[in-house]
Amino acid sequence: MTPTFQRIVLASRPKGAVLPENFRIETASLPELKEGEVLVRNHYLSLDPYMRGRMSEAKSYAASQPLDETMIGGTAGEVVASNNPKFSVGDKVVGMMGWAEMGVDDGRNLRKVDVTHVPLSAYLGAVGMPGMTAWYGLNQIIAPKAGETVVVTAASGAVGSAVGQLAKLRGCRAVGIAGGPEKCAYVVNELGFDACVDYKAGNLKADLLAAAPNGIDGIFENVGGEVFDRALSQTNAFARVALCGLIAGYNGEETALRNTRFLLTNRMTLRGFIVTEHMEFWPQGLAELGMLVGTGKLKYRESVAPNLAAGPEAFIGLLQGRNFGKQLVKLV
Amino acid sequence: MTPTFQRIVLASRPKGAVLPENFRIETASLPELKEGEVLVRNHYLSLDPYMRGRMSEAKSYAASQPLDETMIGGTAGEVVASNNPKFSVGDKVVGMMGWAEMGVDDGRNLRKVDVTHVPLSAYLGAVGMPGMTAWYGLNQIIAPKAGETVVVTAASGAVGSAVGQLAKLRGCRAVGIAGGPEKCAYVVNELGFDACVDYKAGNLKADLLAAAPNGIDGIFENVGGEVFDRALSQTNAFARVALCGLIAGYNGEETALRNTRFLLTNRMTLRGFIVTEHMEFWPQGLAELGMLVGTGKLKYRESVAPNLAAGPEAFIGLLQGRNFGKQLVKLV
Repeated sequence: MTPTFQRIVLASRPKGAVLPENFRIETASLPELKEGEVLVRNHYLSLDPYMRGRMSEAKSYAASQPLDETMIGGTAGEVVASNNPKFSVGDKVVGMMGWAEMGVDDGRNLRKVDVTHVPLSAYLGAVGMPGMTAWYGLNQIIAPKAGETVVVTAASGAVGSAVGQLAKLRGCRAVGIAGGPEKCAYVVNELGFDACVDYKAGNLKADLLAAAPNGIDGIFENVGGEVFDRALSQTNAFARVALCGLIAGYNGEETALRNTRFLLTNRMTLRGFIVTEHMEFWPQGLAELGMLVGTGKLKYRESVAPNLAAGPEAFIGLLQGRNFGKQLVKLV
Repeated sequence: MTPTFQRIVLASRPKGAVLPENFRIETASLPELKEGEVLVRNHYLSLDPYMRGRMSEAKSYAASQPLDETMIGGTAGEVVASNNPKFSVGDKVVGMMGWAEMGVDDGRNLRKVDVTHVPLSAYLGAVGMPGMTAWYGLNQIIAPKAGETVVVTAASGAVGSAVGQLAKLRGCRAVGIAGGPEKCAYVVNELGFDACVDYKAGNLKADLLAAAPNGIDGIFENVGGEVFDRALSQTNAFARVALCGLIAGYNGEETALRNTRFLLTNRMTLRGFIVTEHMEFWPQGLAELGMLVGTGKLKYRESVAPNLAAGPEAFIGLLQGRNFGKQLVKLV
């Protein structure tokens, strides 16, 4: 009997909001391991907003996710068979094996990780792509000085939570924006941000003015839309924007910016970025993030879906802000 | 009898469009020259879009123009009396003496210029602030490589005309955007741009696609609004925007940007700037611009109002795009 595993493929492209029927769960056969190949059992699958962009055919920075193929995605797991001298059975590895219980790789897309001080799942979050996204955008684009105010949207999420904590470590005032009092309480009380604005509370302008009384020097933007527009209007001269995501418009919603004049009058710098295009910073950044997580100075929270079949709903929840911290799917 | 001169003051702040009655022409008395002071007869007064911002009380990068005081503005003229050893009668000087026939300065805001190869008026245009604005935004923000496509709005204006010609000298494809067939013909036939799109022709999308068939790598933005939005949608990866002006919104019009997603998907860099905050580049830039004008490699055109009283209408025309090239007021 051929060994099999479960995977999730893109069944159709969403028209507007992502729906469960855009995905299909399938049973696939494991191929024979060729010379140099490694078989990995994935323990965790990472769900990230960028996947929404891949589901569309619209021009973006990356190729579209093909229909009927395994959904793209980062994974953390364990080597269960190896024809590659660089990997041994039992090695913990992160990779890009997609929404699947198992996968085969020639080793070039796998990275061994040390789980002595850092949990395996953290390599998909604070010590992985989301953490590096925070690290790069904050350090290489916003580059805040001590005493400056940094605002980050989706502040309780995997990226945003790291942005604010890293900003605090640099001596900044960290202001989060999140949806709902529970997330805001977490951002302030557990993550140590100076303030958090609940954008759902209906008092955005006054609340953001109160949270950033000295104006805004840096915006780490994950969402776009009205909240971003409001933040632009409260910037100081020479403010910087690290434009990381525009999740508010991922389903084609109108996200027009009306306050663009502040980009000029405040002589702002705005830069859109994709952290995987700056791999030269990853060794330094991941070392720092791993140290901070291992010593408890960088906290994170995870929302964990219990199995592969729960992946699509968890992803839809992520796009709607129902997750709380890094959204994972637990496979083992 | 005390010697007098004419000047124009801000009589009231515009509500929406600037009107002639926002200005008032006055006769003023010349003060006695104190030790170190210089009396200048202005030959040319520069009219520039930034003055519109100063007329409002809205928060901007500079203080508002006070009511009942001489309108701010760059000037080029001749020293007619001097109590300052650094300046002699007959010296040609540029300064910021405002909308006035004459003015007194302690010399710190005056710069002697050489009119052997460059006409005096050019020091208010191609070899002055507009030229430096073009030079800085193109070289320090867009920094185009040969073969890249640079789009500039208000292409027949004092700044835009220099941007495109400097881009051509760097081996770029220069695409102008201007209002009307006459301006577009000038931009292509006299200034040597590769193409010019008439945004008033009602075919912006197709015309810009045809003018920039390889996509847009740099946008030098003077106008904002719909044209800027359209250009954003045709950018290539890693495109740069030098945000110099948003004249489309200076009277409070809606200038929302709908295509902000391209800032992210194309990992663009956008920077707003004010060239007077980068004085360290002026000696190098002005030397280069003076050489290019003196040798005929950088062309420009002037719209000249015949006297001080004609200044307000000329300024209103500038804001409406009725000027053709650098707008000046001739005083002598």
